[in-house]
Amino acid sequence: MDWLATSIMNRRGIAAGRMGTTHHLTEALQGVYHYTIGPYSSPVLTVRPGDRVVVETRDAFEGKVKTEQDLPSRVLNMPFVNPQNGPILVEGAEKGDVLAVHIESMAPRGPNPRGTCAMIPQFGALSGTSLTALLADSLPEVVRKIDVDEDGVYWSKRVTLPYRPHIGTLSCSPEIDSINTLTPDSHGGNMDLPDMGPGSITYLPVRTPGARLFIGDAHACQGDGEVCGTAVEYPSTTTIRVDVIKGWALEWPRLENEDVVMCIGSARPLEDATRIAYRDLVLWMESEFGYDRWDAYMLLSQCGKVRLGNFVDPKYTVGAGIEKKYLAPG
Amino acid sequence: MDWLATSIMNRRGIAAGRMGTTHHLTEALQGVYHYTIGPYSSPVLTVRPGDRVVVETRDAFEGKVKTEQDLPSRVLNMPFVNPQNGPILVEGAEKGDVLAVHIESMAPRGPNPRGTCAMIPQFGALSGTSLTALLADSLPEVVRKIDVDEDGVYWSKRVTLPYRPHIGTLSCSPEIDSINTLTPDSHGGNMDLPDMGPGSITYLPVRTPGARLFIGDAHACQGDGEVCGTAVEYPSTTTIRVDVIKGWALEWPRLENEDVVMCIGSARPLEDATRIAYRDLVLWMESEFGYDRWDAYMLLSQCGKVRLGNFVDPKYTVGAGIEKKYLAPG
Amino acid sequence: MDWLATSIMNRRGIAAGRMGTTHHLTEALQGVYHYTIGPYSSPVLTVRPGDRVVVETRDAFEGKVKTEQDLPSRVLNMPFVNPQNGPILVEGAEKGDVLAVHIESMAPRGPNPRGTCAMIPQFGALSGTSLTALLADSLPEVVRKIDVDEDGVYWSKRVTLPYRPHIGTLSCSPEIDSINTLTPDSHGGNMDLPDMGPGSITYLPVRTPGARLFIGDAHACQGDGEVCGTAVEYPSTTTIRVDVIKGWALEWPRLENEDVVMCIGSARPLEDATRIAYRDLVLWMESEFGYDRWDAYMLLSQCGKVRLGNFVDPKYTVGAGIEKKYLAPG
Amino acid sequence: MDWLATSIMNRRGIAAGRMGTTHHLTEALQGVYHYTIGPYSSPVLTVRPGDRVVVETRDAFEGKVKTEQDLPSRVLNMPFVNPQNGPILVEGAEKGDVLAVHIESMAPRGPNPRGTCAMIPQFGALSGTSLTALLADSLPEVVRKIDVDEDGVYWSKRVTLPYRPHIGTLSCSPEIDSINTLTPDSHGGNMDLPDMGPGSITYLPVRTPGARLFIGDAHACQGDGEVCGTAVEYPSTTTIRVDVIKGWALEWPRLENEDVVMCIGSARPLEDATRIAYRDLVLWMESEFGYDRWDAYMLLSQCGKVRLGNFVDPKYTVGAGIEKKYLAPG
Repeated sequence: MDWLATSIMNRRGIAAGRMGTTHHLTEALQGVYHYTIGPYSSPVLTVRPGDRVVVETRDAFEGKVKTEQDLPSRVLNMPFVNPQNGPILVEGAEKGDVLAVHIESMAPRGPNPRGTCAMIPQFGALSGTSLTALLADSLPEVVRKIDVDEDGVYWSKRVTLPYRPHIGTLSCSPEIDSINTLTPDSHGGNMDLPDMGPGSITYLPVRTPGARLFIGDAHACQGDGEVCGTAVEYPSTTTIRVDVIKGWALEWPRLENEDVVMCIGSARPLEDATRIAYRDLVLWMESEFGYDRWDAYMLLSQCGKVRLGNFVDPKYTVGAGIEKKYLAPG
Repeated sequence: MDWLATSIMNRRGIAAGRMGTTHHLTEALQGVYHYTIGPYSSPVLTVRPGDRVVVETRDAFEGKVKTEQDLPSRVLNMPFVNPQNGPILVEGAEKGDVLAVHIESMAPRGPNPRGTCAMIPQFGALSGTSLTALLADSLPEVVRKIDVDEDGVYWSKRVTLPYRPHIGTLSCSPEIDSINTLTPDSHGGNMDLPDMGPGSITYLPVRTPGARLFIGDAHACQGDGEVCGTAVEYPSTTTIRVDVIKGWALEWPRLENEDVVMCIGSARPLEDATRIAYRDLVLWMESEFGYDRWDAYMLLSQCGKVRLGNFVDPKYTVGAGIEKKYLAPG
Repeated sequence: MDWLATSIMNRRGIAAGRMGTTHHLTEALQGVYHYTIGPYSSPVLTVRPGDRVVVETRDAFEGKVKTEQDLPSRVLNMPFVNPQNGPILVEGAEKGDVLAVHIESMAPRGPNPRGTCAMIPQFGALSGTSLTALLADSLPEVVRKIDVDEDGVYWSKRVTLPYRPHIGTLSCSPEIDSINTLTPDSHGGNMDLPDMGPGSITYLPVRTPGARLFIGDAHACQGDGEVCGTAVEYPSTTTIRVDVIKGWALEWPRLENEDVVMCIGSARPLEDATRIAYRDLVLWMESEFGYDRWDAYMLLSQCGKVRLGNFVDPKYTVGAGIEKKYLAPG
Repeated sequence: MDWLATSIMNRRGIAAGRMGTTHHLTEALQGVYHYTIGPYSSPVLTVRPGDRVVVETRDAFEGKVKTEQDLPSRVLNMPFVNPQNGPILVEGAEKGDVLAVHIESMAPRGPNPRGTCAMIPQFGALSGTSLTALLADSLPEVVRKIDVDEDGVYWSKRVTLPYRPHIGTLSCSPEIDSINTLTPDSHGGNMDLPDMGPGSITYLPVRTPGARLFIGDAHACQGDGEVCGTAVEYPSTTTIRVDVIKGWALEWPRLENEDVVMCIGSARPLEDATRIAYRDLVLWMESEFGYDRWDAYMLLSQCGKVRLGNFVDPKYTVGAGIEKKYLAPG
């Protein structure tokens, strides 16, 4: 793809677009998946900037919801959900750098019905939860198994949805915290942002030696907000390419695709997630794209794009973006 | 346009698509504009279902910000901002009905630079405000005058934005409250939703005899969230057509265009606005489109669309939508 | 009482502590009670600074919940609840002044069981509501009738609560809005602050000629937050004395009693209500009590007192206070 | 003290009030303090139920702010703040148990001025922060050094505050997360609750073998909300006694003193913290004190007490309590 040549990843990364080795992070190689993202687990793989990794991700239920009778409240054992591959060490990455993760492709894995969606008690945006703690009864617990292939997500006789895969959880390790895989924050985490699919590059702040990349939680498709609490969760073969950008100290993740750049904030309440994303975008336009701060702020008021990731997790995620055409030099 | 024939407005409205009289609500006819939306002001016009009204809206600053030296803090007199045309009485509309407002077109009015954007002290998403009350100094007060025509919004030498007009404030009167024109709520109000432009039909709950329609606050374009607090505010000639749908008691406004139906919530914090919108959409899919409630909820988790209106006003506005193709009978 | 002589009301009010006429605002004189607080209703009484008014308030259910079988969803007709006495005009009060309201006493009125508490569907802090819009079933609807006298609130065989009355809703009219009586805001409104009882003086911003005082919603007792949505609602004979302080332009209500001064904010989310209250208190300490702004801010971090009014209404109310002894000149 | 004999700790703990050994967790024994609370650090001490531990806590700035010229932005190295003693293993404590921590006394340690309060850039309730991300300039950075002894906190010539010490941060380890010491959550953490001082017993959920108790962050006094972001931070000698209550699986911490029981929630927005606390209290009244659920809910609406811990940390903390006299059997 053409635009990659002009992406920040390829312009500023150590590998500068040169392809390295391809690694295969199979289920067997991964062995133990992780439920927390931090500096305390043992690396499963070490790669170099420019390398490609083909990752076998497991679904967020770790494959335990095989039929519509496998209720999450019975087969899951909290907090052991949303298993992550990794940590992958990337040579040369240090605190104060950025890890660029280009998602090249995502293919479904395993037998159909591979997709799983569920309404889980005390989870989801239109239910009381452990945080929005109410006395109302839980909504019914419902499991939906869905056939998925690269042509579609076969929701029901009535509805077939397009296959629009993305990675729900993508992170470098925090410096000292280890954060459960349900929670997004400034390290990345469970952002559930539909833009984070094939054709996107995510820029993650590196906070520990080697970056310690974690990846998982593939979604075959997802609406804005992931309102019932789960997407079409499925096992995937996800191919990424990584690079390291030295001396780019981000506070929050950013994303780039062919048309748009985006800043990503995760917080509660939802306006705070949105503020984080928009502030970071203003400051980025100022520092890198030659905008006066107030010009950037006022321009975004006219053309900024907001994507709601999820508003169901312990923190909510919002991306604020601008079309690249408005960032071209004047 | 074809789709109008199958719109809810034309299928269920009293006029059923038959065109009525065209009225001209000029500045002269309007005379006194309104800064509060309620049942206590005198109607300026009475129309029938199916009638068209050509409305001369004033900009949100009421034309007082003529140059970049006219600082809002000097020329405005709060709460006398965001002037509204109306109230327009619609014959036959009663509490428990819906007023359908089809925006047919929006044309710029008056001499250039007609567009105004401003950073106003203690206003906007990345500033402390009267509600997010902080001790920090205000951001600088900045006014931007912008040429606008139907081909573009001439933001700067570097950036020309597309002309994508919409109506920021659209309301029927509340039953007993009278609400300032800066605030959105279940009556409509200052929603600042970019989808509410030409080609859209908004469905507003009627709560007083004759509906008492108010309209104003045209934007030549606006980003999601209206982050600095103002869009490209401009005076417009906005042409609407209205109809009345009897016995459709809505709690919150809804919207329809060629591709999408949308429910609109306004509240703080932002997650509550989003919850309102999504709940209303689930219940609508159940009551009108033959969906099981939980099927609708889980499906929206896969294909729901969220539009952030503003998150700068006293209440924030969110639209939650679904593509009409998924609502077609199975 | 001694402290009144040194209260702001008596030191700075027009009447300066001189007692005026006593008026009786009986149910009969009131006639029509009000469900919205604004500039559009007809005054029921005109008084002078220093005058006393003995007000017969109705309970928030307007007396319609007479037995535990009178479910609110059947006997109430929204939005016609929380009836208010007034508007009372106070001579000489103008926009930019303050109306001081000293609550002298509150006595129960009418036959027992006079007190009413209810769990109302889609209302209360631990239920989904119209704003925190969920798909869960409502909590059960429950009515509790309670004997109340000046010695106690006879909750159950097990529990007798002290009689600690306060006024839930106290307001001057907004300038142009008319706001339903369930909502608190900068005009006062439905604050549900337990401190607003006998022995307190509330300072309300005047925004229309004559101040247009509204009062109602007596509570025989109330916990912090009014968590189930209602207090022990009861009809009262409430005696107030009013005065006007010229040229004191407040943004939000304030309160004083023998020991404490307090600023009151109403907003959502709850942190914004708290921010409003604390910011106003910092600025008050700076402008009137000789504190450096940052000294005040840091001192409140050590000795500030927060009272949660309600977190069940459309906006939540918080009082932030400081003991007067810390405001004495150094 | 009498009431201890009837406390839950003494009635239900393994030690049942029997005093065990006294341990001294000095600075020297502690050696390395901790900035994150989790299962990955090495225990510093193992004790038995009933044992007493005399802990030398360091102040939240780790003693680095020695003068009013030592600005936090220069002398601190985020996230290495708020150092914690521990982890202390308690024999017999397992997942599903409760660790009871009775704070017996807190004495100041080290030379005066021992107390430190600071306004830190992008921190505190009336400032933009990393989460409430704004474009406004930071407030000034100010350090205040304060003499503290057991008779008072000598704030200024004008103001002496009472010495009312409490522990700001108290935790058992989460099961898999490791959480920085600035953040409160269901494990305890940085709650900053003024009630958590001498004479209180805190009940913490045990989630890992041995409970892994962490303690630190002594405050010589603190207002509700800790509004500027810091209390009077000081090094202390804090004496605690611990016990284990088997088979009491709490979701959130609880607290007891002579007069009150309290449930503690930490979340954002602030209403969610309050909901957590009140829901837990309702459920506790139902499960342990013989209340019908709805009776408990409605009674708390009349007599519940809310304490705002902090609303400055990454999550806000609220305690909801009821006087014990209302819990006595009917």
